[in-house]
Amino acid sequence: MLPGAPRDPARRSPPDAPQNPLATRRAEVTRILDESLARGRAYDLLVSLCAAAPHRLAGSPGAARAVEWARERMVEIGLENVRLEPCTVPCWERGSLARLAFTAPARLAGEELAVLALGGSVATPPEGLEAEVVLLQRFEGLRALGGGAAGRIVLFDRPLDETQRDPFAGYGGAVDQRARGAVEAARAGGVAALVRSITTRHDDVPHTGAMGYEDGVPRVPAAAVGTRSADRLAALLAAGETVRVRLQLDCAWRDPAPSFNVVGELRGAERPEEIVLLGAHLDAWDVGQGAHDDGAGCVHSLEAVRLLRALGLRPRRTIRVVLFMNEENGLAGGRAYARDHAGEADRHVAALESDRGGFLPRGFTTSAGEAGLAALREAAALLAETGAEKVVPGGGGADIGPLGRLGVPLIGFLPDGQRYFDVHHSAHDTIESVSRRELHLGAAAIAALAWLLADSPAALPRE
Amino acid sequence: MLPGAPRDPARRSPPDAPQNPLATRRAEVTRILDESLARGRAYDLLVSLCAAAPHRLAGSPGAARAVEWARERMVEIGLENVRLEPCTVPCWERGSLARLAFTAPARLAGEELAVLALGGSVATPPEGLEAEVVLLQRFEGLRALGGGAAGRIVLFDRPLDETQRDPFAGYGGAVDQRARGAVEAARAGGVAALVRSITTRHDDVPHTGAMGYEDGVPRVPAAAVGTRSADRLAALLAAGETVRVRLQLDCAWRDPAPSFNVVGELRGAERPEEIVLLGAHLDAWDVGQGAHDDGAGCVHSLEAVRLLRALGLRPRRTIRVVLFMNEENGLAGGRAYARDHAGEADRHVAALESDRGGFLPRGFTTSAGEAGLAALREAAALLAETGAEKVVPGGGGADIGPLGRLGVPLIGFLPDGQRYFDVHHSAHDTIESVSRRELHLGAAAIAALAWLLADSPAALPRE
Repeated sequence: MLPGAPRDPARRSPPDAPQNPLATRRAEVTRILDESLARGRAYDLLVSLCAAAPHRLAGSPGAARAVEWARERMVEIGLENVRLEPCTVPCWERGSLARLAFTAPARLAGEELAVLALGGSVATPPEGLEAEVVLLQRFEGLRALGGGAAGRIVLFDRPLDETQRDPFAGYGGAVDQRARGAVEAARAGGVAALVRSITTRHDDVPHTGAMGYEDGVPRVPAAAVGTRSADRLAALLAAGETVRVRLQLDCAWRDPAPSFNVVGELRGAERPEEIVLLGAHLDAWDVGQGAHDDGAGCVHSLEAVRLLRALGLRPRRTIRVVLFMNEENGLAGGRAYARDHAGEADRHVAALESDRGGFLPRGFTTSAGEAGLAALREAAALLAETGAEKVVPGGGGADIGPLGRLGVPLIGFLPDGQRYFDVHHSAHDTIESVSRRELHLGAAAIAALAWLLADSPAALPRE
Repeated sequence: MLPGAPRDPARRSPPDAPQNPLATRRAEVTRILDESLARGRAYDLLVSLCAAAPHRLAGSPGAARAVEWARERMVEIGLENVRLEPCTVPCWERGSLARLAFTAPARLAGEELAVLALGGSVATPPEGLEAEVVLLQRFEGLRALGGGAAGRIVLFDRPLDETQRDPFAGYGGAVDQRARGAVEAARAGGVAALVRSITTRHDDVPHTGAMGYEDGVPRVPAAAVGTRSADRLAALLAAGETVRVRLQLDCAWRDPAPSFNVVGELRGAERPEEIVLLGAHLDAWDVGQGAHDDGAGCVHSLEAVRLLRALGLRPRRTIRVVLFMNEENGLAGGRAYARDHAGEADRHVAALESDRGGFLPRGFTTSAGEAGLAALREAAALLAETGAEKVVPGGGGADIGPLGRLGVPLIGFLPDGQRYFDVHHSAHDTIESVSRRELHLGAAAIAALAWLLADSPAALPRE
């Protein structure tokens, strides 16, 4: 799918560029990477986003500021057809109180543990919930306990398995506790769920994230505890002590509210109706600054188009940047986009999302079938100097998932994942945790792949 | 060179380990990596070193504390033949004063710029050196200036070329200014040399490093300036302004002093006289904590042996850990080791140094010839799950360089280099810049390669 005779070689390549189409493509990738490393703006854009709207959970004032920030940046960068596309988002507010303190054993009474409400949790009564703690590593253990969880606060303490070579696999093996812990605890009669933070860092900073309830099951409060706090509780329980704690959370649900995906385009020169979508999510958890999750993805997408424009590279097809709202706790933006653009789903050549942080590029995942995978591998071979040369089967990203169900081939940016769960959904996810060079390598990799996909005479094969 | 029938398989592998020698090797690498990720101590060791002796330039009280720290850790880990091997180190002290301030233009008089003495610089007079600033990017420019540098302070402002894919190449293209700037400036009549910090970070934290003088050339003070300070000076000069500054440094040379390499061993079970050396340097610049440079290498080496001991893996040959003194400003430790062990140089099967930081493992460099390179590639193929699967021709490391000149095959640990010059030789090189997982992956890669080299029936081929 790759080679293509440039329509206007003088404008797009230096005069001495090779005339071989593949060599021309290589030279374009080199120019994109040079530009990103020498004069890239991705890091400065991220500094700006983290300052303008560090907390930007859907429906919050921060999210509204982030929407405005994104719209302004798109105009500034020179995107075309910049617009806000409406969606209705759920509104959950953290509130100002998250406290977990021992009430027994008596010698520890009043000592506090590190805690953070999980996103979506109901509040405790104002005076808190006071109960004995029971610890479990597996949901099955709740059944074995019989009525042993009744009236208790259930601590789900299964750690992220650090021996997994890919930390995402370790995360995947623990995140059920966060997503379903409250339901499972309540089914067994528990009055609240505490979940060991899912992180590779050994400290006591709690990591939040979305949790859910089920109709017909009592809605009990749910919170993440720091790993050291969890270890402390576990050690006391292992020593046979009776441990009681008081949990206080004042988080709350508000009515759903209007919000927006922010959309802009680099219009295609020959087939503007055909679209390569570059996406990321603008919302972020309301701790840290969402620098990696997913500020990095947002600036990857914006910067990809800025780089192409700076180099005078206007592709055959349109590259459409979509900064989605509400990935973290509802996916309203991703669903709304797929619904509102279902009529042009077959004209989406591919959708690429960056939502694994701004780390060192390694490659891409893709939902494309055999022919699409082969074509992407051919393209990624040209990206070797960016580091993103590996293409493996996999998903694309949560926001573009609904588009995938309409038949659009999905691609996910795949940076190195070793540091992601050090920062994910926590106060550690700040601009200080982002490497400028790693971010700029990633922006170049995404810009180059978007260019190849959008400018190739042949579209990415669909199944 | 790799496969080898274990002498005591029950002790070294789980009972269900495959009997195929190569599969046994793979299983050993897997166990080493599992152990490092699940129960590794490298990060905690590094926390301890950074706390015990954050500043440990050769000859300083901090270096003496680091020597004692290393000796104690070796004993604690269970290394054998733990000893201090003497060397005589040069002693340079930073002092307490480093100040660079405008004296002209008048509107800026007194405003300070970010500055740090280069290692080895002489002091200024107590009242400082006040002179006009002249800016150059190339030494050749000094000749073009004619007498234009006489009596001036010369600012060498050539930046690290960020478009280099490997930041070490960018560093290599700028470091001559730091190493030789004072000599070149003095030859042209300059009274001091300022050098733009060699870094990939865009801030104003100066990065130090070694500089040198030449007999017969006046010794003028030399200092690194922050990149923003350098940009500010450059902008004023570009605007045609006359810029004058006052530089004050109270650094000083003391008499050479006794110090030590710290040495310990995991003795070989069959050929204890044959040695695989694991090295790193214990000294570090006296800013930051030397966490990556080269605390990471020190704990890589210590932890490699601890991992093998924890798994009951005693190799055929001896693994000798050498934590060298004075890599940063003299190489006294590396030279002393090669001199004092010249008689057993031919029994050093290989020497491996880790001195590129505690980042994500990518592979190894080696000075080995064709056959050695092929054998190392065969070994590294087994390390794929650690990430260190690439072996490329190159050096080993400064400390083991003198051993290489005695015919010992050198190997250098090669982590990803994208973030190295963010921190190198600066206040940024602290434990906070180190990822526990990346460090533990590296320790496992080094442990596994050391194991394969030390336990293989056939030694690494020499030229």
